[in-house]
Amino acid sequence: MNNNTITAPKGFLATGLHCGVKASGNPDLGLVFCPTGARAAAMFTTNAIQSAAVVVCKDHIASHPIYAAVINSGNANTCTGAKGLADARRMCRTAGAALGVAPERVLLASTGIIGHQLPIGNITAGIERAAQTLKDSTAAGLNFARAIMTTDTRPKQTCRTIKIGGKTVTLAGTAKGAGMIGPNMATTICMLTTDAAISKPLLAKALKEAIGHSLNRLTVDGHQSTNDTAMLLASGLAGNTPIKTQKEIGFRRFSQALTDLCTDLAKQMALDAEGATRMFTVHVKGAASKAEAFRAARAVADYDLVKCAVHGADPNWGRIICAVGSCGIKVNPDRLCCKIGDTYVFRNGKPTAFDAKKVSAVIARKEHTITVELNVGAHSDFCFGCDLGREYVTINADYHT
Amino acid sequence: MNNNTITAPKGFLATGLHCGVKASGNPDLGLVFCPTGARAAAMFTTNAIQSAAVVVCKDHIASHPIYAAVINSGNANTCTGAKGLADARRMCRTAGAALGVAPERVLLASTGIIGHQLPIGNITAGIERAAQTLKDSTAAGLNFARAIMTTDTRPKQTCRTIKIGGKTVTLAGTAKGAGMIGPNMATTICMLTTDAAISKPLLAKALKEAIGHSLNRLTVDGHQSTNDTAMLLASGLAGNTPIKTQKEIGFRRFSQALTDLCTDLAKQMALDAEGATRMFTVHVKGAASKAEAFRAARAVADYDLVKCAVHGADPNWGRIICAVGSCGIKVNPDRLCCKIGDTYVFRNGKPTAFDAKKVSAVIARKEHTITVELNVGAHSDFCFGCDLGREYVTINADYHT
Repeated sequence: MNNNTITAPKGFLATGLHCGVKASGNPDLGLVFCPTGARAAAMFTTNAIQSAAVVVCKDHIASHPIYAAVINSGNANTCTGAKGLADARRMCRTAGAALGVAPERVLLASTGIIGHQLPIGNITAGIERAAQTLKDSTAAGLNFARAIMTTDTRPKQTCRTIKIGGKTVTLAGTAKGAGMIGPNMATTICMLTTDAAISKPLLAKALKEAIGHSLNRLTVDGHQSTNDTAMLLASGLAGNTPIKTQKEIGFRRFSQALTDLCTDLAKQMALDAEGATRMFTVHVKGAASKAEAFRAARAVADYDLVKCAVHGADPNWGRIICAVGSCGIKVNPDRLCCKIGDTYVFRNGKPTAFDAKKVSAVIARKEHTITVELNVGAHSDFCFGCDLGREYVTINADYHT
Repeated sequence: MNNNTITAPKGFLATGLHCGVKASGNPDLGLVFCPTGARAAAMFTTNAIQSAAVVVCKDHIASHPIYAAVINSGNANTCTGAKGLADARRMCRTAGAALGVAPERVLLASTGIIGHQLPIGNITAGIERAAQTLKDSTAAGLNFARAIMTTDTRPKQTCRTIKIGGKTVTLAGTAKGAGMIGPNMATTICMLTTDAAISKPLLAKALKEAIGHSLNRLTVDGHQSTNDTAMLLASGLAGNTPIKTQKEIGFRRFSQALTDLCTDLAKQMALDAEGATRMFTVHVKGAASKAEAFRAARAVADYDLVKCAVHGADPNWGRIICAVGSCGIKVNPDRLCCKIGDTYVFRNGKPTAFDAKKVSAVIARKEHTITVELNVGAHSDFCFGCDLGREYVTINADYHT
């Protein structure tokens, strides 16, 4: 099997292991290392309450080059005061010392429960062990992907290759996240690697575009965590002529591949969302502005009653219309239309005589599309959502204790 | 037993029966009649998509006096085009003819599934039957309360008496609603009656205040239906000197009693919300503005992860802080505090060493309070919420088909 993990691009070693954060004994510490140094870009949560890991990572992202990123799961290191911040810095210091690089050349992310101090002794011992088990194998990349999981039932990872000036450039990524996921920015934790040679500003631009069209279009429960972080490291070892302007075809290919890769991860996340059994895309067309199109798409995808109807494969389109009407955008009730799959269920303000069994079968698929035609303007946007199952409650009623 | 139904105030007759909207055979048509004519006030959904019943009721509320209100459950008469509007007008015409009053003297509300045409023949026949079974008894009031229910498991009703100038004034109300409930305005269907003599503008003012502090503070799933309607009819038969200015002690007493009554209904609704087993009040203090205080309170009460934690009686306060941080209000992470019941679980940006078992027992009560102290300003507000249980999904995955 080809390597589709974050060790697929040239120049990256990774590992994942259990260091003692999770009581379950599951992997809870991941380390990725680029011995030659990487250009780096990152995006972070806009929640006003941020993890100590986010605070430290924001500080370090300005450094160049970046050599490593360390991620723990099982504990968010959020709402943990001065001790939490000291622990976050200590994680980077420990990783830097073990890898022979300065602490500020190490990026950091944490994910898990909020408000508990890290078992920092376990973590620093784990980082030291991790530094000795780094490999560029598929197994090592998979171990990393497993180590960042929380309530995820399976690792999410994918890989893309493109040609730039005759050279093969590889991009890969893994993401975790199964709940507390809402747009802006809904990335939970996402680790991306590439061997492209590309300038730091263009790396940041490509990341912003990719996340904007993928993970930031995904809503599981509309919640934005305190720890959302997406990191992209570029080793530059692919041998391509370095990408220096956004007009180059190489940049367009890179940017497109990164967006495609992140969309793949977003869909994997939707399908593994807590309690979810299927996903859907909401397209809103004919809105008065792009912002209104997105607001409506998100309103539908976030609407618990829509999510429950999707769970029941129930073509209860009235809830879609109710969501659109309640989100504060410009609407003309007499021109409003709604399609589930290819079937109009509501057209120009009136219900249609559709085949409920046929539409139910469309909803029951792994993926389907809801289209809302507002017919009040020329703007469109979209959002990914998933169904709301009983297991969401089961998982989230018992997570803490 | 004292009459605590909408027939308790002097001058009101009511009834409720099954006319053939609900397949279950449960009551689905309610009629209330004030033979002497009533001053009326009403509040409606602000959803851009509105039921034909809302359109017609908004038109009729300007009439004086109002003699009757007709409400059907099981079908919302929303997204039903010109036929839906004609049917709504016909309901008022039929009720008016049966009661000997003009159609515009009849208020109207519908609740139930969106996008289906009313079985109008069943409904008009039902209205004619209802007009012959009107009574001022407790049983008649209870039948009305049952007839407006959808997924409610029990009728909600309550009554208050006050003294104004030595005269006993009675207020009573019933409300339905178990899902698709969000603030602004989250009233679902609420029918209020009183025998107070009070001017129409003051009646409207008292209703706005009461709903603003009660039903508009309740969120079950953050959803605002297309049919939300609250109606208040005042027969003026209590014999009190008519209330004409808002400075009178009589107005203050009336307004306070109405708010208290509506708060009681809101709490009954929260405790009977779809899948809910308990309710909670979120108080936000020290906000930069009243609007920000309310936004934060609602963000916490709407947050599925908080609602799941409450369902599990789990003191997972990190989710409360996450909700506060993500709602776009002014926050100082180092001064932020959170209490569950009387116990600080988070204080000035740091977790406290609280007794988790004790706090869990507080959450497990029928009602508890979450207090968020922002310490960035002087404004406060509150919101009512309820837990999210598995039954919410069960009920809403299978409602349509």
